[in-house]
Amino acid sequence: MSGRFITMEGGEGAGKSTMMDRVADWLAGSGHRVIRTREPGGTELAEQLRDMLLDRDNLLLSEKAELLLMFAARAQHLDELIRPALARGDWVLCDRFTDATWAYQGGGRRLPAEDIAALESLVHGDLQPDLTLLLDLPVEQGLQRASNRSRADRFELESNGFFQRVRNAYLERAAAFPERFAVIDAAPGVDQVWAQIRLVLEERLTS
Amino acid sequence: MSGRFITMEGGEGAGKSTMMDRVADWLAGSGHRVIRTREPGGTELAEQLRDMLLDRDNLLLSEKAELLLMFAARAQHLDELIRPALARGDWVLCDRFTDATWAYQGGGRRLPAEDIAALESLVHGDLQPDLTLLLDLPVEQGLQRASNRSRADRFELESNGFFQRVRNAYLERAAAFPERFAVIDAAPGVDQVWAQIRLVLEERLTS
Repeated sequence: MSGRFITMEGGEGAGKSTMMDRVADWLAGSGHRVIRTREPGGTELAEQLRDMLLDRDNLLLSEKAELLLMFAARAQHLDELIRPALARGDWVLCDRFTDATWAYQGGGRRLPAEDIAALESLVHGDLQPDLTLLLDLPVEQGLQRASNRSRADRFELESNGFFQRVRNAYLERAAAFPERFAVIDAAPGVDQVWAQIRLVLEERLTS
Repeated sequence: MSGRFITMEGGEGAGKSTMMDRVADWLAGSGHRVIRTREPGGTELAEQLRDMLLDRDNLLLSEKAELLLMFAARAQHLDELIRPALARGDWVLCDRFTDATWAYQGGGRRLPAEDIAALESLVHGDLQPDLTLLLDLPVEQGLQRASNRSRADRFELESNGFFQRVRNAYLERAAAFPERFAVIDAAPGVDQVWAQIRLVLEERLTS
């Protein structure tokens, strides 16, 4: 028996954390052993890389180094946590994965698609999520929600144009892989967002 | 005017540090402005990655993550230090570069050549060293010299077979790129090794 790999994606203020809680509870309630994790990070070494990537004082970090660090953290996360968990039949619920790299480094920073594709193939050419929940929200609305939080990280300091490109890249990924993605309207209240997600989980995971 | 890029390679105990000093002095004496640096590392962020890579307590670091971290550190080093230095006409003398990745991760760890080639192309497809000095030494002799040093790092704990594969991979690189490489016999005393290197510098760099 092999577990399933579910990822949650979305821009700033889309409400990923709240929905991660609900999805984890729902999966556990369905009798699965659930490993909840996040990217960048998820293991001790990968979390050290996360700190470097998000630290807003790391002004000199180059775009290419950022891209490679993302995939270095991902390789460690996959090798140390995700692959072993799936192999023993656990379900893995991950806050962001490679679609976020396509959105932030590809869309936001406009890094070449062929570079991202080469790294994706090198690091997990054999493994893709079984289901990706994309919480979609107009950029202005997301930033307004996110502005109530603590000190912004290195990415949250970017411009509105950056976040618009992130959103567009996410929606392009969803259009390119409709069988894996479910686009969730994250604009309404928590219970309405959750109702959409629960429907997706029931339709796609209980077959 | 553009500077030149010189790398020094070799296994454990080959005497790279001593020869780095002499080469740097010789270049400065020839009127060049010399930036002396090393890999992994060379900038503050890349040195943080060096610490992770060499820390012998990082037992869980996966081979693929190690490879990606090496190239992440290299991308940062190139973008922040090496390319700007060459562009302003400085000469860059670097203790280890991508040939070391071919030797240690490719030869030593037996990672796929196509993965290393893909990363090399992504990170510096446009730039190769102008000259690579390979200090070559039988493995036993090198390990004996290195054993007098302080606490071994994560790589220095590897087996003799590992270091034999590293040496072979270095020699294969030199055979594949004879115009860039100079293989130096590092077995004799310091002055005799330096005499060989000085001859190479005079022949290849003063034309």
